[in-house]
Amino acid sequence: MENISFKNVKFNEGFWLNRYNLNKYSSIQSVYKRFEETGRIDTLRFNYTEGKIKPGVAQDSDVAKWAEGVSYLITSDPECCKDEVAIIEELIDSMEAHQMEDGYLNPYFMQLFPDAIFCRRPAHELYSAGHLIESAIAYHKATGKDKFLKVMMRYVDCIEKAFITEKTAKFQTPGHEEIELALIKLYDHTGNKKYLDMALHFINLRGNTDEPSIDENVVTKKYDQNDTPVRELTDAEGHAVRATYLYIAMSEAAQRTGDAELQAACDRIFDNISKKRMYITGGIGSSGMGEAFTVTYDLPNLKAYTESCAAIAFLLFALSLSNNRLDPAYGAVIERIMYNNLLSSTSADGKAFFYENPLEIHLHSLEKETCMAPHKRSKLPIRTRKEIFETSCCPPNINRIFARLGDVFFSEFDGTLVVNQYAALGLNNDSISLSMDTSYPLNGKINVKANACKYKNVYFRIPEWCDDFDISASLSYKKENGYIVFENVGDTFEIAIDFKMMPYFVESHPNVRANAGRAALCYGPVVYCMERCFNNYELNAITVDSSAKIDVVSTGIDTLPELHLNGALSCEFDGLYRKKSNDKKSVPLVFKPYYTFANNGECDMIVWVNCI
Amino acid sequence: MENISFKNVKFNEGFWLNRYNLNKYSSIQSVYKRFEETGRIDTLRFNYTEGKIKPGVAQDSDVAKWAEGVSYLITSDPECCKDEVAIIEELIDSMEAHQMEDGYLNPYFMQLFPDAIFCRRPAHELYSAGHLIESAIAYHKATGKDKFLKVMMRYVDCIEKAFITEKTAKFQTPGHEEIELALIKLYDHTGNKKYLDMALHFINLRGNTDEPSIDENVVTKKYDQNDTPVRELTDAEGHAVRATYLYIAMSEAAQRTGDAELQAACDRIFDNISKKRMYITGGIGSSGMGEAFTVTYDLPNLKAYTESCAAIAFLLFALSLSNNRLDPAYGAVIERIMYNNLLSSTSADGKAFFYENPLEIHLHSLEKETCMAPHKRSKLPIRTRKEIFETSCCPPNINRIFARLGDVFFSEFDGTLVVNQYAALGLNNDSISLSMDTSYPLNGKINVKANACKYKNVYFRIPEWCDDFDISASLSYKKENGYIVFENVGDTFEIAIDFKMMPYFVESHPNVRANAGRAALCYGPVVYCMERCFNNYELNAITVDSSAKIDVVSTGIDTLPELHLNGALSCEFDGLYRKKSNDKKSVPLVFKPYYTFANNGECDMIVWVNCI
Repeated sequence: MENISFKNVKFNEGFWLNRYNLNKYSSIQSVYKRFEETGRIDTLRFNYTEGKIKPGVAQDSDVAKWAEGVSYLITSDPECCKDEVAIIEELIDSMEAHQMEDGYLNPYFMQLFPDAIFCRRPAHELYSAGHLIESAIAYHKATGKDKFLKVMMRYVDCIEKAFITEKTAKFQTPGHEEIELALIKLYDHTGNKKYLDMALHFINLRGNTDEPSIDENVVTKKYDQNDTPVRELTDAEGHAVRATYLYIAMSEAAQRTGDAELQAACDRIFDNISKKRMYITGGIGSSGMGEAFTVTYDLPNLKAYTESCAAIAFLLFALSLSNNRLDPAYGAVIERIMYNNLLSSTSADGKAFFYENPLEIHLHSLEKETCMAPHKRSKLPIRTRKEIFETSCCPPNINRIFARLGDVFFSEFDGTLVVNQYAALGLNNDSISLSMDTSYPLNGKINVKANACKYKNVYFRIPEWCDDFDISASLSYKKENGYIVFENVGDTFEIAIDFKMMPYFVESHPNVRANAGRAALCYGPVVYCMERCFNNYELNAITVDSSAKIDVVSTGIDTLPELHLNGALSCEFDGLYRKKSNDKKSVPLVFKPYYTFANNGECDMIVWVNCI
Repeated sequence: MENISFKNVKFNEGFWLNRYNLNKYSSIQSVYKRFEETGRIDTLRFNYTEGKIKPGVAQDSDVAKWAEGVSYLITSDPECCKDEVAIIEELIDSMEAHQMEDGYLNPYFMQLFPDAIFCRRPAHELYSAGHLIESAIAYHKATGKDKFLKVMMRYVDCIEKAFITEKTAKFQTPGHEEIELALIKLYDHTGNKKYLDMALHFINLRGNTDEPSIDENVVTKKYDQNDTPVRELTDAEGHAVRATYLYIAMSEAAQRTGDAELQAACDRIFDNISKKRMYITGGIGSSGMGEAFTVTYDLPNLKAYTESCAAIAFLLFALSLSNNRLDPAYGAVIERIMYNNLLSSTSADGKAFFYENPLEIHLHSLEKETCMAPHKRSKLPIRTRKEIFETSCCPPNINRIFARLGDVFFSEFDGTLVVNQYAALGLNNDSISLSMDTSYPLNGKINVKANACKYKNVYFRIPEWCDDFDISASLSYKKENGYIVFENVGDTFEIAIDFKMMPYFVESHPNVRANAGRAALCYGPVVYCMERCFNNYELNAITVDSSAKIDVVSTGIDTLPELHLNGALSCEFDGLYRKKSNDKKSVPLVFKPYYTFANNGECDMIVWVNCI
């Protein structure tokens, strides 16, 4: 099985083209501006002098991810992003000019700590190298220019020497995974098996060294996935982004080596996350303490950490696994992330981003530590998107994922085309010329027309939320394992499916303490929320009836509807406690898509509403 | 108005006599043993030498509170506690022998830091002095022996010099309040107005100095109530025990000086706590961060701090205020604390104690910080009572409050007797010989017989939970402002009241986020809970119907009934989310009094249950 590349997919008018263009014409520029202002671009200009902003750890990786995003954009549209490409060219020249004789290339260590090269396990050196490798591959594929790629291949040789051949490095495994998956991409791109072997070297070492955790004073070896050999893993543990980058590499490695044990570990982990550790928004990593996975069913809403990078990594892990086995669970997770945690990551104007993506905001509680010295107070949950962070990994990760989002829609195996996601788009490759006409996710009506089709069969993933659909096609179909299957479709075909989309309430597994007695209102793949700016009540004092009549109120041709219903607001009374009453009043409620929250100033927000 | 002293009140057989005796025959001995083992008793023997356990800050105050408890016990029963009295006598001799020439008497500073006397505001010096003063007064009243009292009066002279006359002390107000209320007790006991003036000096200084907080690196001046002059206070703020000890002193001072402004501040604070910051158990101080009050309606259950000392202080604050004005709110708060937070403070065998009194236990969540280094993990909520703590202020505070609990039952004003609480007891003073026959709180039937009554009127407080009562008496009565009022009762009377006691569900003010959609089951003044050892389900997955039939199941002649009802348990399913179902099964539930929880091993517990 193989995913069909975004190169072959082009969004047409509508929801996803708008979203794609928001990244292309706003986010990419906003991230660049802030990166220039904060010295991140300068980092790769190697122009640090006393008095300037000091290069920060791994800031080159931020720029690399941004450049990777630009590369995907110019792959699809070679005429776009001229200014950004000029910057990338400048930085490539700079990297080539400053690369050390032995191939080493990390601007933080070279400019600030040249004596500490490959000495500090926590310092993200190989993480940065990984992102630069991914970026170089993307740029080479986009432009055919190989200078960046060659620079990185020289760096990889240097890494091989230090960590494998000569073992001069002072640590064995990277404190933050990323290079493993990048090396496998480099193997795919060059065909040179040494890169795959290097990736396997790093993957197999994890949990098999006596290296301490990246900071024994703060975290255990679980934090950086160095407590258990990878083939023995059962649960997702530790720093969510580090962990999931490793899981992606494990999955990619298992598919290339046929390592059934490694594949089984990946399958266990995917099950563990998607069935026990994932927010309804697709977010993962519930705790800010260590930005980490915690225990099963621990999914607090107010303190949900759910880093944007972690959701992106989980999407990529699901995408990788979807190449191993036909299973609608992967597409379901990807759809959940796409329409919720991923969309929420960015402001309506495209310029600002969430690092955390909380599932509840309750402003009154935020200042509860009234008598603690300001620096002793607990870190407050985020409540507004920001254009830049001190650790600004998320914004460029958001850049690059939207620029390649076409990757998630189709896959193919043995003469079969699989439609995994739905959007108004065209697919054109050697095997088909297909157009999908739809307003999805505004409604579930899909019209697919195909010409020059060499595929024998076409599978459509039935969305996880969909209980009922209509099909209009001259072809017959069957429902099989979560897919609608059309066989022998012929050279030309036309299929219309209506995945019946209606608002519905979702409940959590009863072990999720945070959501006890509560439900989330959804419409298609989109989770909805209430914001206090549109519902001026104490949001936790509202109870909805899951059988209430819900009006789907259109808000425009390319934007999702609002959901209107009446709820019961508990009435205030003097004092704190009284015998339970039914003293509630009916109030009109406006739910909007979760991902749109926090675009109207700071205010309370809730996803999981009290529900009977 | 004046409370009638516990000296005149004697519990008869039943619930409260058992509880009183548990303190007298088990807790007092348990606390003494642990204090002896941990060097706390030695602290006042002034026998520290290299290699022994070092005296700790304020450990003398722990011993003082324990001795105060013993003093109350021997007040009521001069034949009891012979061993404990011998220890107290030994320690009094030791204190007299070691008291410094200028009267100073703090074993921690004298034995470890003699050069730092009255230099360290955070070090609880005056707090300890206050507890020793209270203890000395109690011992003098109990025994007529004045050695301890004289020692403390000499110490107070020394304090007066250092803080008021000569101002040699390096700070102005105590970092932990307590001496203020002790000085007013000393004024009451001796009639010497200088002690009242000293108390007023310390009270009036608060919020009027430029002293920093006790630790500017950790807390603000709000923490130790030094940010606002006392007459301007509106809300309860900062460390809950420090704050409430101050509020008690303010109330006592206002009553003795007629200071209306100070009284108004007390009234505002009592309203603020009881209407916005108090757990249903009467616990206060919701946050472990600073052991402090936070913001209004912030009453988390899992992380409820609700220190036993804070509940005791709040009871004493309400008791003090009840001498200012006839208002059933004070008795209601006292009853709430008595039957819930105060009773929960002690194990069934009387030997172990809660410092915090959580309103929920969820063991699975406790180890959620899986990848943090052990010392970096959040402090876990308490889940078992302990015989001793590093800071062991609560156990002896529990000793002394139970030993004087007779204080809360009656008060008198202008020829009127007020019955504030109900128990099987006798009241004998110059004005009445009264016996109350009742099984309260097992049921609400009260039979009062009185002889030799010189009171003109008798008021019975209608319990806050009581909607309906029957009265059988030859006297007529009226219902007035929360009381049942009998006028012109005569020399002898007999009154039977049946406060109709039935199980009922309580709801919180809708702004209490933690209790949204939930209710607590109560019976009379007693809050009930479910423990997993008696209800082996995920407790948050249970929903009760507030109209369900509840069986009141007797458990014995002197113990509270269990409440049995059926609830709906949400069924487990594969995965995390699904469309809201009504897939629940009916399960039998056993609720027991909250205060009995954690007597059967560590297990989950819940007070606020999902409720429709």
